[in-house]
Amino acid sequence: MIVEKEDKLILVTNDDGLYAPGLRTLFEVMEEFGKVVVVSTLESQSGMSQALTVKTPLRVKLLEENDKHRIYSCNGTPTDSIKLAVNQLLERLPDFVAAGVNHGANASVSILYSGTMAAALEGCLYGISSVGFSLNSFSRTADFSACREFIRIVMTSLGTEPLPPGICLNVNIPEVGKNDIKGIRICRQSKGNWKEEFEKRKDPMGKTYYWLTGSYNNHEPDAEDTDEWALRNNYVSVVPVTVDMTAYAYLDKLRDRFSK
Amino acid sequence: MIVEKEDKLILVTNDDGLYAPGLRTLFEVMEEFGKVVVVSTLESQSGMSQALTVKTPLRVKLLEENDKHRIYSCNGTPTDSIKLAVNQLLERLPDFVAAGVNHGANASVSILYSGTMAAALEGCLYGISSVGFSLNSFSRTADFSACREFIRIVMTSLGTEPLPPGICLNVNIPEVGKNDIKGIRICRQSKGNWKEEFEKRKDPMGKTYYWLTGSYNNHEPDAEDTDEWALRNNYVSVVPVTVDMTAYAYLDKLRDRFSK
Repeated sequence: MIVEKEDKLILVTNDDGLYAPGLRTLFEVMEEFGKVVVVSTLESQSGMSQALTVKTPLRVKLLEENDKHRIYSCNGTPTDSIKLAVNQLLERLPDFVAAGVNHGANASVSILYSGTMAAALEGCLYGISSVGFSLNSFSRTADFSACREFIRIVMTSLGTEPLPPGICLNVNIPEVGKNDIKGIRICRQSKGNWKEEFEKRKDPMGKTYYWLTGSYNNHEPDAEDTDEWALRNNYVSVVPVTVDMTAYAYLDKLRDRFSK
Repeated sequence: MIVEKEDKLILVTNDDGLYAPGLRTLFEVMEEFGKVVVVSTLESQSGMSQALTVKTPLRVKLLEENDKHRIYSCNGTPTDSIKLAVNQLLERLPDFVAAGVNHGANASVSILYSGTMAAALEGCLYGISSVGFSLNSFSRTADFSACREFIRIVMTSLGTEPLPPGICLNVNIPEVGKNDIKGIRICRQSKGNWKEEFEKRKDPMGKTYYWLTGSYNNHEPDAEDTDEWALRNNYVSVVPVTVDMTAYAYLDKLRDRFSK
């Protein structure tokens, strides 16, 4: 693959593994917009957040190359994949980082645990326009056809004006037919948390172990300006996400507490 | 250990392993404030961000118990440790989550990769007053004595009024003697990123592998209201951190871009 000056160069990754239908969907749509380099683990890495691999060495394998794309497997997290691609594998800084399409929504606080959104955050730390796409379904046989159209709309809206540094997009798509999606809503992140329900089991040796399970607890189900509301009401939610986690509204109050 | 109604119950974890001097320091100071439960991996888990363990079962072992504390080892990430403790190991929701003292600073965007701050974020998602403490030194033999005093000051400032839900504190302590620390500054997160410099090596089989290394690139070294500036100028930095990553200031502009 030769990247010409006029080509858009697009870096694609996700955390469901290289053969996940969601990643394949994103990769195929991205080929309509430019030259594509995919870097991903072969196996899934869900829930890895923005984890870095610091205790084991990273390895990369070029699996496929043609005129339009290159596909690499790597043994790191989605964040490692972005770092490796930008620093070692790409001919220049890419124009876009696209992560997804994730199998499972990343709305509300799920963003904190998400490998998909970590990859997008990592992209925008390099000043690259970055988007994470997720479908609200965990099924391997989920219908990704509606996703294609909305990925195109998001990419077209981004156009040639880059996103501001340190800001990326979190796009969640409801799993309904294309005609049942009511449109796109620009939202804020919904307030909520995960209620864990650990499954406690005994292994054949009689020792206890736990599986993490849980369900999402929406603190504001009626707030129409949130991503959770949009998704539940068959809208595609788009949240601009910042790497700056400062609670600005609380700075003065905190100063008061420390000055007592 | 019996937790009475009037006792403060404090959950302690970190990502440098159960025997790290930083964790021991925090644990000892926390015993001055209440009954303490420690949950941590035996080995270090640096750079795990807010990763969850979903593919392997979690195991927990009670290693030590007396009147004032219980110490558990677990095989999960710092975030898993908080979830397990809150849902399976503690008699009630703790009054505080304290993570650290981390070996190495977690100022600026390092918060995104930090297991220490992930534990604090996890705590505040449960509505618990949560603080991550970090010392600006990676040395195993770093001097944690100044930390003790500043941990006490932070805990005393928190007092009995809990932090607002979804907000925790990121406390970074310079590695200088107690008398050289100029005080505490309430700050915002500094803008910056990590510049990677992967070390590319060959294994004995002639195959390439990479080690992730890098250095921090401060985008605003002169901004006196940031955590990086505070730390470099021998202040303890305290940043209030929110789980809400919405880029509010960019919402309207993004709506414009999508309405074109």
